[in-house]
Amino acid sequence: MPRIDHLGIAVRDLRAAARLYELLGCRATAAEEVPQEGVRAVMLPLGESRIELLEATRPDSPVGRFLERRGGGLHHVALAVSDLAAVVVRLRAAGVRLVSDAIQVGAGGHRYVFLHPSAAGGVLIELIESGESTKGNERQS
Amino acid sequence: MPRIDHLGIAVRDLRAAARLYELLGCRATAAEEVPQEGVRAVMLPLGESRIELLEATRPDSPVGRFLERRGGGLHHVALAVSDLAAVVVRLRAAGVRLVSDAIQVGAGGHRYVFLHPSAAGGVLIELIESGESTKGNERQS
Repeated sequence: MPRIDHLGIAVRDLRAAARLYELLGCRATAAEEVPQEGVRAVMLPLGESRIELLEATRPDSPVGRFLERRGGGLHHVALAVSDLAAVVVRLRAAGVRLVSDAIQVGAGGHRYVFLHPSAAGGVLIELIESGESTKGNERQS
Repeated sequence: MPRIDHLGIAVRDLRAAARLYELLGCRATAAEEVPQEGVRAVMLPLGESRIELLEATRPDSPVGRFLERRGGGLHHVALAVSDLAAVVVRLRAAGVRLVSDAIQVGAGGHRYVFLHPSAAGGVLIELIESGESTKGNERQS
């Protein structure tokens, strides 16, 4: 069974956004910059999942464009699956549209794909290999 | 620490939407109608969380209006917290806007509040008492 690895939420102001979750009992990590994706991120552990708050460091980054278009909100849902390659084969056979043709490898060596939002009714879904955990360095829109 | 209880996703077609998650290894429950909210829902367990797919049964229901306005996508994020009353006191003291003034009680007796989307950067957050689990009958937009 998959699990929710994280929710990526695009925000205008990382610290202001983190404060709300801290009121709920979450403990935010220090902000971490990911220059290649044009974001600064704060992680909020939530049981076996986490929320990643994403602030754009440049307006033309995927998160910057999302903020411009939507004014903030849920950017992606990341689900961890136990055999990513087999899942991708099943998805392709079923005609599900992926953002990229191949499984991508992020900076930490983790493997991931993004489904096209049209495949999931407007939700951008990232699939990652279970047991791995994205480190906030592979986002795309 | 809070955990993600469920993600509520508004969809045009419940069975078509469920098929994608079944390809990922989820097992969807039978659809369940919630007349007072004007939705039909399918649950997809995901570790300690779940996805609720929500289809409108009338266009003027909260989910119906959301679909009309946004064409589908994430409707709300439900977080389970261990002492809902204390959390609500903290939120009020911090000036966080709630959708309703008081803690609501759903059909199954569970207690919940919704934060106003403006309080969480465009994300509609539902808080429920930890240990309880919403039964798909208290949604609002």
